[in-house]
Amino acid sequence: MLEELRERVLAANLALPAHGLVTLTWGNVSGIDRDRGLVAIKPSGMDYEEISAADIVLVDLDGNQVEGERRPSTDTPSHLVLYGAFESIGGIVHTHSTSATAWAQAEREIPILGTTHADLCPGPVPVTRPLSAEEIERDYEGATGRALVEAVGERETDEVPAALARGHGPFCWAGDPAGAVEVAVTLEEVARLAALTVALDPAAGPLAAAVRDKHYTRKHGPRAYYGQAE
Amino acid sequence: MLEELRERVLAANLALPAHGLVTLTWGNVSGIDRDRGLVAIKPSGMDYEEISAADIVLVDLDGNQVEGERRPSTDTPSHLVLYGAFESIGGIVHTHSTSATAWAQAEREIPILGTTHADLCPGPVPVTRPLSAEEIERDYEGATGRALVEAVGERETDEVPAALARGHGPFCWAGDPAGAVEVAVTLEEVARLAALTVALDPAAGPLAAAVRDKHYTRKHGPRAYYGQAE
Amino acid sequence: MLEELRERVLAANLALPAHGLVTLTWGNVSGIDRDRGLVAIKPSGMDYEEISAADIVLVDLDGNQVEGERRPSTDTPSHLVLYGAFESIGGIVHTHSTSATAWAQAEREIPILGTTHADLCPGPVPVTRPLSAEEIERDYEGATGRALVEAVGERETDEVPAALARGHGPFCWAGDPAGAVEVAVTLEEVARLAALTVALDPAAGPLAAAVRDKHYTRKHGPRAYYGQAE
Amino acid sequence: MLEELRERVLAANLALPAHGLVTLTWGNVSGIDRDRGLVAIKPSGMDYEEISAADIVLVDLDGNQVEGERRPSTDTPSHLVLYGAFESIGGIVHTHSTSATAWAQAEREIPILGTTHADLCPGPVPVTRPLSAEEIERDYEGATGRALVEAVGERETDEVPAALARGHGPFCWAGDPAGAVEVAVTLEEVARLAALTVALDPAAGPLAAAVRDKHYTRKHGPRAYYGQAE
Repeated sequence: MLEELRERVLAANLALPAHGLVTLTWGNVSGIDRDRGLVAIKPSGMDYEEISAADIVLVDLDGNQVEGERRPSTDTPSHLVLYGAFESIGGIVHTHSTSATAWAQAEREIPILGTTHADLCPGPVPVTRPLSAEEIERDYEGATGRALVEAVGERETDEVPAALARGHGPFCWAGDPAGAVEVAVTLEEVARLAALTVALDPAAGPLAAAVRDKHYTRKHGPRAYYGQAE
Repeated sequence: MLEELRERVLAANLALPAHGLVTLTWGNVSGIDRDRGLVAIKPSGMDYEEISAADIVLVDLDGNQVEGERRPSTDTPSHLVLYGAFESIGGIVHTHSTSATAWAQAEREIPILGTTHADLCPGPVPVTRPLSAEEIERDYEGATGRALVEAVGERETDEVPAALARGHGPFCWAGDPAGAVEVAVTLEEVARLAALTVALDPAAGPLAAAVRDKHYTRKHGPRAYYGQAE
Repeated sequence: MLEELRERVLAANLALPAHGLVTLTWGNVSGIDRDRGLVAIKPSGMDYEEISAADIVLVDLDGNQVEGERRPSTDTPSHLVLYGAFESIGGIVHTHSTSATAWAQAEREIPILGTTHADLCPGPVPVTRPLSAEEIERDYEGATGRALVEAVGERETDEVPAALARGHGPFCWAGDPAGAVEVAVTLEEVARLAALTVALDPAAGPLAAAVRDKHYTRKHGPRAYYGQAE
Repeated sequence: MLEELRERVLAANLALPAHGLVTLTWGNVSGIDRDRGLVAIKPSGMDYEEISAADIVLVDLDGNQVEGERRPSTDTPSHLVLYGAFESIGGIVHTHSTSATAWAQAEREIPILGTTHADLCPGPVPVTRPLSAEEIERDYEGATGRALVEAVGERETDEVPAALARGHGPFCWAGDPAGAVEVAVTLEEVARLAALTVALDPAAGPLAAAVRDKHYTRKHGPRAYYGQAE
């Protein structure tokens, strides 16, 4: 079971450079085994081409390292907070993908300007509030996770599958690591489209509500009819 | 005959990722056999690398599935409306290609700013009118097709080989699926050039009418002299 | 001799897609044999991957086809005018490369904003004047060539190795076809840099004259010290 | 020892096109053997794919060529000034990478707008002052090096690992050639992110000081906890 989790987390990490979402060693993917309460995550600062399944680190939800010789990603505490707050998620991706990071650096939520965005989620992609100096000092990565949880608020994680850490970059989640990678790929294209759209019309959007809802519900939820039946 | 149609539609679908026009499973190509009244189209939400000719779905012009185990593209009703309205077309491409989609999201037609555009068509690439909530509720994909037909209006499909579904993305058509792919490739580059041009000069264009007509007629119609005689 | 010219012109044409300068069949390269008064040029509208040396067309300076079964590029008359006016050039490239074409569509010369530009040439890349409807009607491609020659004016072709056909795209020239390709590659990057620079500062430039002259003369002319001695 | 230095400098040079940082023959990497006082550097104007270790030139700190048949990079005097001024550095990279060069051409320092930048360094990437005509005339490349040193000023080279030569492009340095390439790759992405960010919000930044310091110190210095222990 844990070996299989490590393999899936490895594959999801390797999908990041394959999709052009990372530069050098940046970015990380994790996956969780809810029954055992263990999270598998990328080792910190390793080249993607050098990572094997044995390098994937296992930690418990308190951050104790359970298996693996490598030091886990520095962003591990952010992942753990997200897994603790969002019970339905099984995989998390963090990247510095170019367009999504530009929105994070501009400290702007990504407005919903088209159906590509509505195919992913039915509202803007939120940006976290500023952290206080004390939060940063005491537990920066944990505080980042808590600010992401706050940014989602009372909404479902299906409806807010990603948020931007202010000044930093996107965090994405889904039912498993591969699904979180798919969110990350989509989010980057949505962010790129949105940047090009506001360049053409700074007052663009939002997308008409009826079109937005139609696109979201044809891909998500009980009335979905996109894709092949499983 | 139908097997050959499926193969051509498969090849045209696979040309979309080869030309960098798609992310993940987005986009679709169809082709029609006018004699039999059958349309071959990409299955919904399948990875491009997993599709074989057997996955291409055949539907009649009323949308009844005639052959294939897969569920057809959710955009199938839009394609069927276009085939019904435009008798001369034999292939349709829909993508979310980045630059063309940005214009669709900005709800702006693509103005004719250069000869690359005039080599494709002699006027702006239109954007559809907004759909009403009722149209979206009752038959969204069909209404999208009808709005595209309206956007073309009385003009020839040769002269308006593509239109932007408002807030969504481009639909392109031609005499066969491969030709529609060529329109989609050209449109994306035309849209990219236009976005860069208005960034350099927001008041740019339109292209001088005499240059526009010269470029269009040297590639299209009875006085064309571009390319090799066939 | 002519076979070798055809091979060099073929290789230079194939370098265009390798350098990312062309979409589909767009663009063309020619080369001249001054002794015989013959120009070798790409056939019109052929896929780059299908062209062999036998498809390269030979025409004389009056435009008469001397060898080859293919129809030559529609832009052939523009090339012939340039060869007639500029005795020192031996190769010409025309592309619709994205950034250079955006400047052409904005009908703006490319200002000299950095040393990368000065490494290519010591002044702005000019844009042609508008053509009259009569010029377009009577001999569009020849008139395009004449307008390019006018845009260079009394200057040396070494100092103005490229010009933008207004609303259309760049034409580049050098001592041989491979050299003209190198100009086209450099021009595209210079155009891209210039577009990004004016986005950061609309009032940017021009580059200080002393830096400009230093960079140009360290790569060109009798005091050049860039590269390996030949 | 020198053979190994040449091999490392060759590998670092070849990493530039692999990372998409160069066009044609532009850019160069050097490395220094401090014990022998010798610098290994790319030969001037050679295609990257043609360079072998034997083409890497060795010069002393006065610029005398000690080994190698090739003419060294024209930028060699800039490198030598940097090695003379910054005792802790062991490798230098110069490129015309697109986004960093656009900032250099806009004559703007790169402001610190996000954590990706803070992961590299804790302040803006400076741009050099204008050179006087006399400096350019007498010793352009040496004067460029001295202006880079001035731009760093009293700060540590770890904290200012790169600077932009005004109107020209970035110079990057680190403890060895491979490290300098990593700075160059990061700088280009930082510059690209910054350009996209100011397009979304011209008044963006600076990044909150507490976040900036946290990111810098978690990757650099005694309290660093990013990456694997060595």
